[in-house]
Order: sequence, then structure tokens, then C-alpha cells
Amino acid sequence: MPATATATDPGNSRTRSWWGWGYTDAHPDDAECLEMGALLPGTLARPLPIPRVADLAIGTPAVEPPPSLAHLVTADPAARAAHAMGKAYRDVIRALRGRPGRIPDLVARPTDDQEVADLLDWAGEHQVAVVPFGGGSSVVGGVEYRGAHRAVLSLDLTAMDRVLEIDAVSRSALIQAGALGPVLEEQLRPHGLTLRHFPQSFEFSTLGGWLATRAGGHYATVHTHIDDFVQSLRVVTPAGTGTSWRLPGSGAGPSPDRLFLGSEGTLGVITRAWMRLQERPRHKASASVAFADFQRALDAVRAIAQSDLAPANCRLLDPGEALLSGASHDGSSVLVLGFESATAPVDDRLAIALEMARAHGGTGEAPKAEGDAPADAAVSAWRSAFLRMPYLRDGLARMGAVVETFETAATWDRIPALIDAVRTEVGAAALKATGHAATINCRLTHVYPDGAAPYFTVAVAGRPGDEVAVWDDIKAAATDVLHRHRATITHHHAVGRDHRPGYDLQRPAPFALALRATKNALDPHGILNPGVLID
Amino acid sequence: MPATATATDPGNSRTRSWWGWGYTDAHPDDAECLEMGALLPGTLARPLPIPRVADLAIGTPAVEPPPSLAHLVTADPAARAAHAMGKAYRDVIRALRGRPGRIPDLVARPTDDQEVADLLDWAGEHQVAVVPFGGGSSVVGGVEYRGAHRAVLSLDLTAMDRVLEIDAVSRSALIQAGALGPVLEEQLRPHGLTLRHFPQSFEFSTLGGWLATRAGGHYATVHTHIDDFVQSLRVVTPAGTGTSWRLPGSGAGPSPDRLFLGSEGTLGVITRAWMRLQERPRHKASASVAFADFQRALDAVRAIAQSDLAPANCRLLDPGEALLSGASHDGSSVLVLGFESATAPVDDRLAIALEMARAHGGTGEAPKAEGDAPADAAVSAWRSAFLRMPYLRDGLARMGAVVETFETAATWDRIPALIDAVRTEVGAAALKATGHAATINCRLTHVYPDGAAPYFTVAVAGRPGDEVAVWDDIKAAATDVLHRHRATITHHHAVGRDHRPGYDLQRPAPFALALRATKNALDPHGILNPGVLID
Repeated sequence: MPATATATDPGNSRTRSWWGWGYTDAHPDDAECLEMGALLPGTLARPLPIPRVADLAIGTPAVEPPPSLAHLVTADPAARAAHAMGKAYRDVIRALRGRPGRIPDLVARPTDDQEVADLLDWAGEHQVAVVPFGGGSSVVGGVEYRGAHRAVLSLDLTAMDRVLEIDAVSRSALIQAGALGPVLEEQLRPHGLTLRHFPQSFEFSTLGGWLATRAGGHYATVHTHIDDFVQSLRVVTPAGTGTSWRLPGSGAGPSPDRLFLGSEGTLGVITRAWMRLQERPRHKASASVAFADFQRALDAVRAIAQSDLAPANCRLLDPGEALLSGASHDGSSVLVLGFESATAPVDDRLAIALEMARAHGGTGEAPKAEGDAPADAAVSAWRSAFLRMPYLRDGLARMGAVVETFETAATWDRIPALIDAVRTEVGAAALKATGHAATINCRLTHVYPDGAAPYFTVAVAGRPGDEVAVWDDIKAAATDVLHRHRATITHHHAVGRDHRPGYDLQRPAPFALALRATKNALDPHGILNPGVLID
Repeated sequence: MPATATATDPGNSRTRSWWGWGYTDAHPDDAECLEMGALLPGTLARPLPIPRVADLAIGTPAVEPPPSLAHLVTADPAARAAHAMGKAYRDVIRALRGRPGRIPDLVARPTDDQEVADLLDWAGEHQVAVVPFGGGSSVVGGVEYRGAHRAVLSLDLTAMDRVLEIDAVSRSALIQAGALGPVLEEQLRPHGLTLRHFPQSFEFSTLGGWLATRAGGHYATVHTHIDDFVQSLRVVTPAGTGTSWRLPGSGAGPSPDRLFLGSEGTLGVITRAWMRLQERPRHKASASVAFADFQRALDAVRAIAQSDLAPANCRLLDPGEALLSGASHDGSSVLVLGFESATAPVDDRLAIALEMARAHGGTGEAPKAEGDAPADAAVSAWRSAFLRMPYLRDGLARMGAVVETFETAATWDRIPALIDAVRTEVGAAALKATGHAATINCRLTHVYPDGAAPYFTVAVAGRPGDEVAVWDDIKAAATDVLHRHRATITHHHAVGRDHRPGYDLQRPAPFALALRATKNALDPHGILNPGVLID
């Protein structure tokens, strides 16, 4: 059944920031920046001014598109500036300091697969680097060009944002890759269906971006990466276009889709996908559990992750993270638990999980009423803070602070030592780089029966004007700790350009050979997102 | 913690058949063959004799191994005959008719990764084709050589069958690829852990075989392919050895493991893997539901698959399949449902599933007692028949019958028409090839929220002496139906050589380019399992 093509973009009426996270109207004002800065000793006395496109030196494009494609392409300075970088701290502070990454020569907004293929053909002929761009929320340098091509084209897919078809029987939908989270969910809602993939960047990232980076989503346990919800992919490569069959499962050779999932725009452009959907949950229950001892909290989370209770939310906040989000004020760690189902009530599952948590020293109660009961205060506090966090990061950046996150995953046997080592060694690197003691908070964002994904936030006053160098030093220390503990360089932020050193250390040599051979076969001119994953 | 190295092979005391399924002492005798043959009009008056190795023309090997590897290699005729083919009907009938596939020149049984690498080096230098061999249970021509190499080495990995390490905290184990199912489970049992991967071939297939073919296992819903239980792989390729990190999840580039899962020995030899384990289930409940109408049974199964009840067993038998296995005798279809958990009782989940089934016209009750209640009669009948089935197939083959299975998967919207088309068109092909009406039964072996995996059994009297040609005609018709209905050429039997025509039609062109480029990079001499997946 063809889906409605009249859904509107819910974000249309608000203005996106070209240099910072999200919507400009949600940015902290100067007063809030000052308040936040007061919490970090050594930050600036006044916030850095909001940068303006007009102050950037944006030159004439080094190439012109052919007349047949000109209607898809713009050289407008504001569009080019907004496509120059992602939204990592590194990107934000470079914009604030007036030193953004290379501004692309052109921005293209194709409307169908053939136009994508035509743009790739043209770029290949003219040695123009092509950087696929979805919501632009990369925090790993994934949408920024660093190299020596004569020209750079940012390939913005957001004009391709329709749910093209819904198969209610198989509970799946064919969705164009350029659809932002709210845009695709709004088109699914009338059918009672949902993709239920809610990364922190949900409003500002696209299906294609999620697929190309193996995004981590809503579900806290096991089924979290977008990979598992893919039924079929269409990929436009310089060597041709391919579409995998819609299959619920298959054993026919290595999975063709899995080679393109996580390929970060280096092998082809994902233009559409059949995605597995969920019914909207009818039953929900959530609770928070406080722990005086972080190590015992880890044990509780592990027990729950190794059960088959499958909580939809199971995030453990360490004391600093719990304090920051308002989930606790007494130095305790907080476990946020949530269950949901479209089939049956979930309060029994929540009760068993709470019992497991109490067996490990946790204190927390299930809410009295099930279903429509309001989430408890700690859960609500965490949720609001979660969505506001990137905006606050930018406010702190305006105060000259260095504030960034990084995430990883490791098996449970390595988790306690890994978290300790990050605190100690990254803390030491931050102190050395800045002379200030850094705040380092940790939460587990996703858990598995065999391990967990710790997510770290680092905040410290920078050296004025040298914030990028400070962060690079801190990040190098983090990469080193992760490598020594055999913890992945990224669990769901992707590799991009920023994580290349860590990725190169981690990737098995035969797979590196395979990836390089594949790259040469599919992108013989080397135009697709050069510098990402492979050279 | 190092696992015990003293576990014994539970199969040691029984003799494996070189030409047919499993253990020789489990083969039907002549009387049983005659009884079965009587059910299929047109079969032989007397069973074909059991073939003997001594009757095969097994020549002198075309190559000799170097002295440094000679102790790993045998040219013994019985060993070579037992490594010549897998266990498809096609293989069995060729052995019975005295026309087996090409007998390998040598069989090697390496004991560690270095020996595997040395054997590959030698084979590459001497243009010897290498066919990796685990339990030898391939039903798709995956372990048989067809080509023009001067010599063929069967690389038997079953000497590498140890559980090398158990990480109880992360509930995972490092297991050598050559361990047969019972061999690895016996080593895990003292630790209270289990891989819980129970394909029909469990006794006669290895971990490495499961990984290389993306085997489908025990769980009937979603998490069924072995892929999802892999934490890390080691792969020895002609271009070098690589080991992926042990990670519970990662977003660092395309999954390196997923490229080798399903590669069927064409890109490298998987020698060990860290696998995710389960606790042994403490709670079980099962029931069977009868349906007068197969279409309504399909609807019931879909409803259950799209809930979050996650049955461990959820197999739907059509009337013929139910009759054959003794699960029903009145022409009804039977749904076999099973739930299990190490965490909490599962009778409530079974009750909800049964309610769903009844809403679609099913009749069935939950057993009175939970946990240790004996499974109901239909469930037990199905289980016994399931394990005995391949032996009976060989008995029928001795009667000159053509009896084989094939499996596929498709989204729910295509399932009813697909099953109808297989019955009609494969039935017509069988009638045309033999002059007899074929029995065609169907069961759903695995179900997903977005689709299902139908498994078909075809039985018909062959044309004496021409059974292979008859089956090839029937199989060509099946491949054609699957292709037109966009149903995968294989859900869990793999591609091998027999499924190549269907696989080539299904594989997206860019992925074919990638696979070919990868093959050239990792296996530059083209010695690894030539003819499988790619040329």
C-alpha cells in the first residue's frame, strides 16, 4: 500500500544552527552560558560570540556542475558553511574560533537514485570528492573533507525523505535514506507502526546516516544497532546500483547488507531501505534504582542483561552523571529501567528486574500503577537532560571549555578495569593539557549478555584558543586506553576521520585487505568520503 | 579460566557412514526400506545395496605433501571416500549408484592454526584446491570438489575440537572450529553453560561449519542464525591470519566478522571463535495446536512471531508433514510451540501464545503442570521424527526414490502464494520428470516478525538409474519458483555448489563485485573451495 506523500517535516518552522547542535532557539543564552561556566574553574569570563557565516572566507567553487545537474546544486555560502563539518565538540569550537574545516565547493540535493548516480558519475570524471550528508550530526568528522581533491561536493540526501511503501502484513516499510527521525516517524504513525530508533540525535539525523554508521538506538539490550532492523538496502555506487532482496533472514553467502552497514559513505550511497517496524507499545513500566556502590550496580546491570527480561531501557549512570542529569543528589549511582510491549503488560518483568537490582544492593520500587503511570522523577530528569545535553555542551564551548563524549564497548570481564583506567588516564591527560582537574562521568548506554557500552563525558576548562589541541591530547589518551583494554573505538558514534587511528589498530588485517579491495572495485576513482575508514 | 581438555567425543564408539547420513547403526535395514518404499508408488522392488569403498576406483594421489606436513595428511582410501561429498540426497544416490563425486587426493587433519596456514601455503604454491571440511553434513555440495585443479586436499578441521577458554563473567567461550555439536556442548556443560545451537545436523556438524554457512539453529524466532552468537572470529587466509576483538557490540566500520560468516570456506578458514553462551534453561513449557485450515494457521504463527513472546520453538507443520511425523492423523496442520527461560517461568507466555492461536481457529491446551511436565504427544512425535528424518531419506534413496528437502525465507506478504506455487510448480516438474505424483510437504522452521522460513520435503519415485537427473529437474523448477517470488535460495542450508544458479540471480551486483575483489585479495591463487559462491 503506498504511504501518504503529504507528511510535513515537523522541524520546518525552526532554524537549524549552522555551527552548533540542533535548533538555534534551543541554544543556551549568554546568561546560561555564564552560569554553566561558573561550574568549571578556569573558563572564560564572557562567552565567545555566536559565529556568523558572513565572517567566513568562503571562496568561489573550484568546479561548476554540468547544466544537466545544475538545478540540484547550490554554491550558496550559508548552505556550504552548514555542510562543512559535523557537530562534534571539535567542530563547534573550530566554528567558534573562526577556523572551520574545509568548506565544500558545492552542495547537491538529489531527489532520486538516478540523480545520485549522475552526480557520482560527474564527480568521478572530474575528480571531485563526494561527502554524503544526512542530518549532519556526525561527532567523528564523518561529513567533513580533509584532503587534496581539487573540489568537494557535499551530497545532501534530505530531499529524499519519503516513506514510499508500507507492508502492514510483514510490518515493514520502504523508506528513503534522507528522512530525518521525526519525518519518518510522522509518516509511519497513521499506520500504527514505528521504527522505534531513537538515538540522542533523533531529530537531526537520517535513516541513511543511521545505516551508514551502524547507529545505536532506543533499545538498551541486544537489539540496539540499526543493523538488526534492516530487511533490504539499495546502494548507489560509482560501479553500479544494487538492491538486496527483502528477506526476513537468509543464509545465502555473507550478508550483502552488512558490508554496506557501517561503510560510512566510502563504498556507495545508501538511498533507501526496507526497514522492520514495531507496533507502537501499549504497555510501559519504568523505575529507577539507586546504588551506593558503582561496582555493585555494574553487577546488577549484568545480571539483568544476562536474564531474558529484555528491558527497553537499562542505563546506568555513575554518581557524576546522575548528579548532572538530576537523577540523584546524594552521590549514588542510578539505574534507569524501562520495559515496553505491544503484546502484554510488563510490570511483572519490571518487578523481577527490580528484585535482581535489590539483590545487588539497589534501592528502588516499581511505580504503583502500570501503563499510564507517570515515569518516576529520576527517569524524567534523566530523559530531559539526555536531550538537552548537546545544547549545554555548546554553551560550555562558548565559555572556552573542552566538553566532549566518547563511547565504547567491551565484554563484562573488562568493564570495571576499563572504566577505572579511563577515569585515571584520561583525567591525567586532561590535567596535563589544561592544568585543571577534569570532570569525567560515565554511563552505560547499552548492555548485552556478554558486555556493555560505557559512554564517557569529559569536561574541563581549555587553554584559550588552543581548545582543539587540548581535546586532541585528551582524545589520544582515550584512544590509547581503549586500545590497551581491547574496547572498541566506537560503539555507535562511527569511525569517521577522528577515530581512524583507533580503528586502524582494531581492524583485523584480512578485513582491511578486503575493505581496500572492495573500495577499489566499487569506487575506482576514490571519490567517496575520502579519508574515512580507509585511504 | 582454562576449560578442561579431557572431554571425550560422545560419538567415538559409533561408526559414521561414509556414504549416508550419520551413524551406520541407525540406518534403516532392508525390511524398513521396503516398508517405506511401499508408500511411494513406482519405487524399486529391492533396496539398492549399501555401497562399499572397496568398489570405488580410488587412484593414487596426484600430489604428495612435503615431509614437514606429511604427518597431518593421509591418502587412505576410506578417509578420502568419506571426504568426497556431503550428505545431500544427490550425494547419497550418487554413492548408491557407484558414481560419487571426485575423490580428494589427500585428507589433512591439522591440529593448530599454524598447520592450517602451512597447508594453505603449500596448496597455493602447488595449485592444489583446498576444500575445508567440518562434519561433512553439507546438503548443497559445499564440501565436494568440481573443477580442474591438478589435485584436491580436503582440509578436515575436526582435530581442532577443544573449548580453549571460558569467560563465565561475560558468559562466553573460545571454541575451536572443528568441534562437533555434542563435543562442544559436553565441554560447556560442567560450567552450566550452553551454546544452544541445535540444527538438525547437530551431531554431525561443527562450529566452524555453522559459522561458515550461517547455520540456523535452535531458536525459532529472530535470534536463530549462528551469526548473532559470534563475539570474535579467527580466520586463516592465504593472505594472512586475523582475529577480531571480542566485542559485545560495535559500530566501528562494517562488521569484520559478518564478511566471513557465510563465506563457506572461499575467503579463509575459520579456526576458532569466541561464542556467546546461554545459561541452561530452568523453565520450559510446550504445547501443540491443531488447525483445520493451513492459511489460518499461518495467520496465527504470524501473530505470535510479531508479538514479543519470543518462543524458542514455533514450527508449523502442514497436514502432510504433521502426518509424516505423527503429530496429527486427521489432516490438520500442527503448530509446535515451546518456551524456555533461565530467568522466570514461561507458562504465562505459552498461555498468551495459545490464546492467539485459538483466536485464529487453533485448538490446543497448555499442559497442566509447568516446568518438568512431559511435552505433549504431538511435540514428542515431531521431535523424534525430526532427528530420524535424514536416515529415512537414505532408506528411501535405497528404494530408488527421489527424496530431498529445500528451504527458503520470504516476507509474510509473499508466504501464502510462495507455498502454493512451490506445491503446484514443483509438483508439476516432479510429475513430468517421473510420471508419478510427488508428495510435497511444508513446514515453517523459523519465523520472524517480518517473515518466515518455509522448508519443503519432496518425495517421489525416481527413474531407475536417473535419479540425479530427476532431482536436478525438480530442483531447477524450485529455484525458478523461489526466484520469481523473491524468496532466498537458502535460509540455513548454505549455497555451496548446488545453489549457485539461484544465488547468482539473487546477489546484488555491487556485492558480487565486492566479493570477487575480496576473493582475489585474500586467496590470490584461487585455491579455497573453488566454485562455491564465486568463480
